[in-house]
Formats: sequence, structure tokens, C-alpha cells
Amino acid sequence: MTSELEDLAARLREFARVRDWERFHTPKNLVMALSGEVGELVAEFQWLTPAEALDLDATALARVRAELGDVTVYLTRLADVLGVDLVEAAHAKLDESDRRYDPDVYRGSARKAPPLPP
Amino acid sequence: MTSELEDLAARLREFARVRDWERFHTPKNLVMALSGEVGELVAEFQWLTPAEALDLDATALARVRAELGDVTVYLTRLADVLGVDLVEAAHAKLDESDRRYDPDVYRGSARKAPPLPP
Amino acid sequence: MTSELEDLAARLREFARVRDWERFHTPKNLVMALSGEVGELVAEFQWLTPAEALDLDATALARVRAELGDVTVYLTRLADVLGVDLVEAAHAKLDESDRRYDPDVYRGSARKAPPLPP
Amino acid sequence: MTSELEDLAARLREFARVRDWERFHTPKNLVMALSGEVGELVAEFQWLTPAEALDLDATALARVRAELGDVTVYLTRLADVLGVDLVEAAHAKLDESDRRYDPDVYRGSARKAPPLPP
Repeated sequence: MTSELEDLAARLREFARVRDWERFHTPKNLVMALSGEVGELVAEFQWLTPAEALDLDATALARVRAELGDVTVYLTRLADVLGVDLVEAAHAKLDESDRRYDPDVYRGSARKAPPLPP
Repeated sequence: MTSELEDLAARLREFARVRDWERFHTPKNLVMALSGEVGELVAEFQWLTPAEALDLDATALARVRAELGDVTVYLTRLADVLGVDLVEAAHAKLDESDRRYDPDVYRGSARKAPPLPP
Repeated sequence: MTSELEDLAARLREFARVRDWERFHTPKNLVMALSGEVGELVAEFQWLTPAEALDLDATALARVRAELGDVTVYLTRLADVLGVDLVEAAHAKLDESDRRYDPDVYRGSARKAPPLPP
Repeated sequence: MTSELEDLAARLREFARVRDWERFHTPKNLVMALSGEVGELVAEFQWLTPAEALDLDATALARVRAELGDVTVYLTRLADVLGVDLVEAAHAKLDESDRRYDPDVYRGSARKAPPLPP
């Protein structure tokens, strides 16, 4: 049985193969494509107040959903080309964060919020 | 039965809850965190030649895997906060691309490579 | 008489030349480096409330200043390699925006804020 | 006498003022806008080979010039809102890089190319 991300990766592999686009899908190019799509996603939120960003109307949400789809496409394709399992890699980082950010120490304090991790 | 991305989203939800970090996880903040992590991923590849990027040594691959993990963490958390199914959104975009890029027209020509889609 | 950006571009040209790093400074690599540095700049602001971001303490401001320096370095080097005058290009975009966003129409309304321009 | 970047900053200040858009131009929003524009710039280069990226045709160069203009607009506006002098900040980073990357040590070796600086 394959996972939904493996199915998506397989579809992308076939998508590139039938168009002879594999030569474009180098790690450098794919990471640039991912970065470009994340830029479009950021642009959807840039002028919104925090409150507006939490309460998108149907049109804005549809655009955001499309951008999230593009980001997922390139992230999945990049990981496939590199042979990395995204969900395993995410859990490995969360194992680290679990050790690093003791809930009893970090709970309830904005000032202790870490600069980068979740 | 839940999927592996639903499991990851649930772990992230709990991770934020026990630290009282939900207030930081607004869409604006999460999209910024995603953008920052993609920047770190891009930095791993910036000075490599195309050939070097295809043949990462174990140390570089471990760093890239860690960055891919961070990107997946924030992308999954953002999608969860917005109520978007990433894999569904990706397939919807690919349905569009399948219609838009006829393999018989686009096959084998660099010049016809689209500016943005996969 | 040269401008301050021309002086900076000249310093960067020499910086690359004496290290034999010109071969790394291709447009693709430099645009990736710019993207990576902007990611680090975004990361400085990601968890701040809008009010906190307006009132950085000296330590945070020093970090932000350093990241802005890095972004300026790569943007200037990229423009130099491509033969583009950044300030002329910016004024050309503002000429467009002046025509496109009539102050009498756009003034005072959040809802009319354009998706992308300033 | 003012510099060309000060003149550009002054034009942007007035541009925002007459439209009552100052409230949108918070540091968080402007850094997101900068990130979005850099994403568009990256997208211009993503599928090009290194050789193609060095030899843009007139149409591609015009698009790249427009994106560089947008990036310069937001970078200048962000620095103005934060009270940072971009060119001074860039020279300060280059002073550091001059100390850190001795030309005699780093010259002529791809493998010694630093992960991040120019």
C-alpha cells in the first residue's frame, strides 16, 4: 500500500516523463520553483491584517488553496528527485523540537518563543 | 484511518497546544516561517553547479533533509490552520496542468517549457 | 561622479575578482542567494506582533540591519551582472504605479489596497 | 545633497502618504511584499540553464528589470520605515567578509566557497 504523498510523487514523475521535462527538474531548478510559489503564497497575505488573514473570504481562500497546491507539487517533486521522505524528515525535526522546547519552560510566554522552530 | 499528513498535522496541533503557542501560529506568521525555511533550503543549493546539486554527499544531504523537514512542518501547520487539504489541492492543480500542457505539444522542447508549472 | 550604488557594485566586482569567485556569481546562483537572504530577513519578523515589529530593540535591529546589508549585497551584485540600474528600474515601476493607482480612487480604503504594488 | 536611494525613499514616502497607505506599510507587511517580489524574480530564472540565464533575450531582460524594480521599491521602503541605510549596511557586511575570506586562502577553489556570503 502506498501513501497519498507517494501517489502524488508517482503522478508527478509520470507528468514529467510524458512531456520529456525531466531535464528541467534538477534540484536547483525545483528549489527555485518552490521558492517562487511560496513567494506567490506570501503575496496573498501581505496586506491583510492578522484578523483578515484568519477570516479569508471564499475567493481569497480559493486562491490560497491553489498556491498551496503549487507549493505541494514542487516540494513533493523535489523530495522525490532527492530521495527524501518528507513526512519522516518532518517527524525527525519535531523529535528534536520536542527535546529542545520543554513545554514547562516555554509555555505561555511570547518572549520565549523560539526565533525559528514551530 | 488517517493519512500520514493528517497524523503530522495532529502532532503539530498538539505541539502548539501544550506550549500555548497557538497564538503565534496565525496564517501570516506561518507563511513567513514557511518562506524563511524555504530560504534556508535554497541556500543549500545556491553555489552548487547543476551536477553537484544532483550528487550531494551525505553531510549535504542530511542538511537538505533537515530543511525539507522544516518546510514540511510549516506547510502542514499552515494548511491545517487554514483547513486546506494539501494533497487534494496539489491534485487539483495537476488536473489543470494536464489540460493545459498537452504532452504532444510540449514534449521534447525546452523553448516550450512553461514559465511556472511543473 | 559615481553614485553610492555604483561604488558598492564596483567593490563587489573587485571582491569576487580577487577571490576568483566570478564563476559562482551567475544570475541563477545570485538570485538564489538573494532569495536565501530575504528568507533570513523574513525569519527576523515571523513571530513578532505588528506592534513588536514596529518597535525593535537594539539587538533585533542590529540583526535586521545585517540581513538588510546581505540582501543589498546580493541585489546589487545581481543587477551589476545583468547590467540593470536598480534605481532607474524602481522609478520606472513607480511611474506605472502612479498611473495605475489614482490617489483619489485608492485613498483611505483598505479594501482597495492592490494585491501587489506598494 | 541627497543620494539616489534617499530620493527614491522620499518618493515612496509621498506615494504612500497621498494614498493613505502608510498603515499597510508595516515592517511585517513590507518584508512579505519583498519576499513575494523576490519569488517572482526567482521564477524568471527557474527553468533556464546557466548558459541561458547569462544570455537573456530583450523580452526576458525587460521582465527581469521590472522585477528588480519591484524588489528595489520594497527593499527601499522597508529600510526607510526601519531607519536603516542600505548601502552603509552592505559595506558593513563586506567589511566583515573581507576579514573572514582571505583572498589567499579562498582563491580559486570551488570547495572552499562559503555556504552563504558573496
